[in-house]
Amino acid sequence: MKKIIVIGASGTIGKGIVEQLGLRHEVICVGRNSGQYQVKIEDPASVQALFETVGKVDGVVVAAGDAHFGALQEMTPEQFYVGLNSKLMGQVNVALAAQKYLNDGGSITLTSGSLSHNPIRYGVNAGTVNAAVDGFVLGAAVELPRGLRINAVSPTLVDESVDTYGPYFYGMETVPVKRAALAYSRSVEGADNGKTYRVW
Amino acid sequence: MKKIIVIGASGTIGKGIVEQLGLRHEVICVGRNSGQYQVKIEDPASVQALFETVGKVDGVVVAAGDAHFGALQEMTPEQFYVGLNSKLMGQVNVALAAQKYLNDGGSITLTSGSLSHNPIRYGVNAGTVNAAVDGFVLGAAVELPRGLRINAVSPTLVDESVDTYGPYFYGMETVPVKRAALAYSRSVEGADNGKTYRVW
Ligand SMILES: NC(=O)c1ccc[n+]([C@@H]2O[C@H](COP(=O)([O-])OP(=O)(O)OC[C@H]3O[C@@H](n4cnc5c(N)ncnc54)[C@H](OP(=O)(O)O)[C@@H]3O)[C@@H](O)[C@H]2O)c1
Ligand SMILES: NC(=O)c1ccc[n+]([C@@H]2O[C@H](COP(=O)([O-])OP(=O)(O)OC[C@H]3O[C@@H](n4cnc5c(N)ncnc54)[C@H](OP(=O)(O)O)[C@@H]3O)[C@@H](O)[C@H]2O)c1
Repeated sequence: MKKIIVIGASGTIGKGIVEQLGLRHEVICVGRNSGQYQVKIEDPASVQALFETVGKVDGVVVAAGDAHFGALQEMTPEQFYVGLNSKLMGQVNVALAAQKYLNDGGSITLTSGSLSHNPIRYGVNAGTVNAAVDGFVLGAAVELPRGLRINAVSPTLVDESVDTYGPYFYGMETVPVKRAALAYSRSVEGADNGKTYRVW
Repeated sequence: MKKIIVIGASGTIGKGIVEQLGLRHEVICVGRNSGQYQVKIEDPASVQALFETVGKVDGVVVAAGDAHFGALQEMTPEQFYVGLNSKLMGQVNVALAAQKYLNDGGSITLTSGSLSHNPIRYGVNAGTVNAAVDGFVLGAAVELPRGLRINAVSPTLVDESVDTYGPYFYGMETVPVKRAALAYSRSVEGADNGKTYRVW
């Protein structure tokens, strides 16, 4: 039984992760406003405070972070920074802090997404950031000490989000959250390091 | 004969690009301090001013942008932002502006690098940013209007930079700048869109 922080636990993806990992582990649910603890992943001080409050853990999972959806031709640098500051640096902030608070052999699991490989209109910011997250785990994996591991889960649109995002993704096959949740389990409970699990 | 802006023209990679494209095209050399025109790619206003001064062109090539090299275990969010602000957003700033100033059928060519796929110690920031640049061109390609195209060149360490960066890359095969320069020509003079040319 491991002690695992899930940031974004109340979300569409997060709920599936909590259900899957909760079968065998102690899950600590974290959100921006919801959960047992709150954090704002864009803010390194808030991330630091979370780990100081919770103390040592065996795993950290992030299923949170925003990107900007909009037309390339109208996109401003400020809009492009939304994804960089939130979904990319938010998760990097968590990883940079987590490496100090994880027990030996612990794991970090981040969330990217299939837009890195299957582009859609209005998706360039998300696609860029997803690719960056995948690149980050590959690079970080070779430097982590004490048997720590880091991986990313790259889901396509999940069935449960079709009502919200469906029109962006016409023609793409979707997957149940339950299937995406398996990849998080594989990262936390397996032996991989530096991998991106494509759930598509 | 096309009119092509090369940002970073005085650099190790840039010199090779100018030599290759200069065989057949009018090349406008741009640098931070050097060249016919100056720009700071991190600053959208400076990028905008460059295009307003130069006017319509057929191609824009960027071989500029910094990343932070250092140990993951000591890396701060501020250090991680070096690559995001410079090599990633600097090039995105150029692409966002260039789409408005390019002639129909024109091209944008950005520079990433092999650390996205072949990680090394101290290279996580560069690797992340390189992956992001590759993701950006894939995503941007499907939205560009008027037959515009965008690609990335991903060189490994070039022979000419071994004196400077060699110790980070022990054991990696290097390539002559001349070979990397061919990929820029392929992007500018070919028909590809959304591709990353691996020069490794
Ligand atoms: N849904 C999909 O189909 C899909 C597919 C591929 C990738 N993804 C990625 O998966 C991640 C989660 O997506 P989702 O659809 O599950 O999102 P969601 O339903 O909107 O849930 C977001 C979760 O993250 C928390 N959160 C939001 N902003 C935060 C912040 N700044 N700091 C800390 N926690 C924050 C929220 O907490 P509160 O509830 O307290 O606000 C909530 O628990 C996103 O990065 C998304 O891009 C989703
Ligand atoms: N060298 C390699 O082996 C290698 C391999 C893979 C990828 N790359 C990538 O290729 C790019 C160029 O590398 P390099 O080794 O050729 O660099 P370099 O020799 O240091 O040259 C940099 C060039 O970019 C210009 N520049 C620097 N910062 C700028 C800024 N903020 N705004 C506008 N222009 C700027 C410089 O102008 P001034 O001279 O006027 O300052 C110079 O022309 C970098 O992104 C690097 O990561 C290089």
